[in-house]
Amino acid sequence: MAVTWQELAAAHRARQQASINPEWILSPESLAKLAGTGLPDEGRLIERRVVEKSGLLTDKELGITEHYSVRALLNMMATGKLSALEVTVAFCKRAALAQQLTADSENNIFGRTLNPLRPNLTAGGSSGGEGALVAFRGSPIGVGTDIAGSVRIPSLCCGVYGFKPSIDRVPYGGQAPFPYPMLRAPGGIAPAAGPLAHSVDDLTLFMRAVVGSSTPNASRYDPKSIPLAWRELETYEENKKLTIGILTEDPEYPLQPPVRRALDEAAARLTRAGHRLVTLPHNAASSAGLGGRLSFQYYTILPSPDEKPLDQVLGEPLVASLAKGVHPFTGGFPVDPALELPQRIHALTMARDAYAAAWHTLWRKYELDVVLAPGAATTAVPHDSYGVPVYTCMWNLIDYPAGIIPFGKASKDLDPHPQKAVGPFEPDYDPNAMDGAPCAVQVVAPRLQDEECLQAMRIIDQALKN
Amino acid sequence: MAVTWQELAAAHRARQQASINPEWILSPESLAKLAGTGLPDEGRLIERRVVEKSGLLTDKELGITEHYSVRALLNMMATGKLSALEVTVAFCKRAALAQQLTADSENNIFGRTLNPLRPNLTAGGSSGGEGALVAFRGSPIGVGTDIAGSVRIPSLCCGVYGFKPSIDRVPYGGQAPFPYPMLRAPGGIAPAAGPLAHSVDDLTLFMRAVVGSSTPNASRYDPKSIPLAWRELETYEENKKLTIGILTEDPEYPLQPPVRRALDEAAARLTRAGHRLVTLPHNAASSAGLGGRLSFQYYTILPSPDEKPLDQVLGEPLVASLAKGVHPFTGGFPVDPALELPQRIHALTMARDAYAAAWHTLWRKYELDVVLAPGAATTAVPHDSYGVPVYTCMWNLIDYPAGIIPFGKASKDLDPHPQKAVGPFEPDYDPNAMDGAPCAVQVVAPRLQDEECLQAMRIIDQALKN
Repeated sequence: MAVTWQELAAAHRARQQASINPEWILSPESLAKLAGTGLPDEGRLIERRVVEKSGLLTDKELGITEHYSVRALLNMMATGKLSALEVTVAFCKRAALAQQLTADSENNIFGRTLNPLRPNLTAGGSSGGEGALVAFRGSPIGVGTDIAGSVRIPSLCCGVYGFKPSIDRVPYGGQAPFPYPMLRAPGGIAPAAGPLAHSVDDLTLFMRAVVGSSTPNASRYDPKSIPLAWRELETYEENKKLTIGILTEDPEYPLQPPVRRALDEAAARLTRAGHRLVTLPHNAASSAGLGGRLSFQYYTILPSPDEKPLDQVLGEPLVASLAKGVHPFTGGFPVDPALELPQRIHALTMARDAYAAAWHTLWRKYELDVVLAPGAATTAVPHDSYGVPVYTCMWNLIDYPAGIIPFGKASKDLDPHPQKAVGPFEPDYDPNAMDGAPCAVQVVAPRLQDEECLQAMRIIDQALKN
Repeated sequence: MAVTWQELAAAHRARQQASINPEWILSPESLAKLAGTGLPDEGRLIERRVVEKSGLLTDKELGITEHYSVRALLNMMATGKLSALEVTVAFCKRAALAQQLTADSENNIFGRTLNPLRPNLTAGGSSGGEGALVAFRGSPIGVGTDIAGSVRIPSLCCGVYGFKPSIDRVPYGGQAPFPYPMLRAPGGIAPAAGPLAHSVDDLTLFMRAVVGSSTPNASRYDPKSIPLAWRELETYEENKKLTIGILTEDPEYPLQPPVRRALDEAAARLTRAGHRLVTLPHNAASSAGLGGRLSFQYYTILPSPDEKPLDQVLGEPLVASLAKGVHPFTGGFPVDPALELPQRIHALTMARDAYAAAWHTLWRKYELDVVLAPGAATTAVPHDSYGVPVYTCMWNLIDYPAGIIPFGKASKDLDPHPQKAVGPFEPDYDPNAMDGAPCAVQVVAPRLQDEECLQAMRIIDQALKN
């Protein structure tokens, strides 16, 4: 007899619940008290210090989970100042709380992930569970996968650091195959796995450890991963002055006020720190909108193998954000969708080559080290209202590594004016709803210059803190 | 008024003829005398020292073109022992002779390239002109492009060294687009540019110079080239003992006797030199035949955009080898050609991933440094009879760098027995026709280990000379 998706999901939830130490499970009463009544201000789990109030963690465990980087924890374990057991138990307790208070992004097994900073806002997706868990310090570091922004969007929504490497830099073998062939189109656009953490140093620590620092490195275990060892850059370069291109917003995808303010303030601090800033001209050939449209054409280049709607293929109802499933663009696609598939593949490949060439030319013309860009047009937004992430997927299209640095917060006082969205599927800016949502900037480097991207992120992060 | 292909070709030939110094053009009588009457033994241009007999080159020029590697010539120019003019004039004279006596592979502009060692045999293709020119020492080094063997086949046919790097290691930007979209299918199989020369040292010199030894290297000028600088390997490694997998011949593509003898003799010398040899089991999942069939399915995955035969698309008659144009396989294709295109792309991608994984597993299981393999089932063969190059294109399919080392010659005395071909499109072995044709071995390393491949080629070349 066939098992329904409801039964499968229930069994999976039961297995997960059974894996949590019963002593760490809160009573429904305590949970309700900690979660608050749903009023916006009450929902700020981290600001309200709900972990402390839960009484589940000792003072030492609170310290372990809140005060140290991954590198510091590794050092303290190596020198015997902390045991591996102490560290593991502390984070397990906190993760158990995160699971109960915030629970992947929305799916039919665990339901919806809540943003631990503002539960009325999305934690971003698709690695939103990892974003929320790291922000809640239920884990000192996490791993997401990013084909359109799925590491970077949760990072910026949850106020943590995130890094999308070049494709196949982090081994990706053994992932469950996607039910549709579309994302498997050879060389179309592939997802990249990357870390979310609390500092650029911890992102770098992860990359160095996973990629490996001698040839043939991780490729020894994964035939698809690139046999390119992690390159150690000269440490004196940490003091270098960067040439930073500032991505001008695409008028079709205007930035919401807190995002624009964060980017402007970041540029001002970087200029004060002595870096050379170049405002890149808005150009149709290299615009975020064009990159977004082309990448969406790639994502959907191969039709469903059986021409059935996704919910019928999967045999379960779609979650709200997928069920919206509308055509995300109003302005049409750069490659005629009516072309036959061979001609469409050809035209799309040519268009992507031209887009990559346009960015390559810009990089050379201005002798850029990196580009500083918004990570998205918005901060975290109310659930199920996220727009088209053109500011992230433009870099997936041409396989440029890109990372998120949290910087500032949305403020109803500093950004008081509502702003209507331009596109029909973009969210409006509501100063009250978004108040307190984290802001961020995105740092981008050319393909396979993952090392240079993280080095620049470290330099920029320092300057933003001053 | 439309220009015919005949007029275009004639104009192109005239331009080429006009670019040769008139003093270097031989009279029809001298040319006929040098070229010989067409009898097999008379056709051996290099053996018969036709350059010397032409009287066109001074003794010093003969020396410049015959006795030095590219590295030695560069040194002599750097230290003033030779001027750049002397070197250029010497090679130009010799190239002018090569053009008149041998001249691309077959095309409708210049006609057919002849093998300077044995003009009754093919110079290989598609970079056969480059192979013949380098063999004739009309150029000390050349560049070909290889998507199925087009650097390696001319190298082994003409008795020179050749190297097919990993895709996009050597910049490839600005190449004329292929008229069909098939080879532009994203990530299908892309051609790689690589050198042909007279030593492994000269191949390495080329790669180091073109790839560049600091980041971001050649990718600064070509957005598609991989920003991976040339890695200098430790020189003490030149003495290392290699673990070498010996590719067992695919029974469907049996080696002709001179090829088998060269491979056996190479293995014996490498064993004597102290290297560890592992005979790889013949396995359907990693066989040359499967690699060849899959790569041919990739080459032809996208149909002609206008469904017309190739000669009508091009507007000119096909040369003989293309006009044969038959289905190269009798045993059918591994992926059902009747599948709809999306399903076919999906199945082919899965099949290629599995083939790459099978090779990856073999490499790890035996801890291989490189694989030693035949470059083709045959030596150079009579014109228009070349078979399916499964032993080269299997490595294009999974993007493994591979190089050719010339080693020995076919001999009607040592390989006296004719051998019938198995497939209907493969040439028979004819001891008399192939007598004197160069033999070779192919050395293969994993993807992007171009440096390790060339290092192993140097070590193996040394051992083969002892």
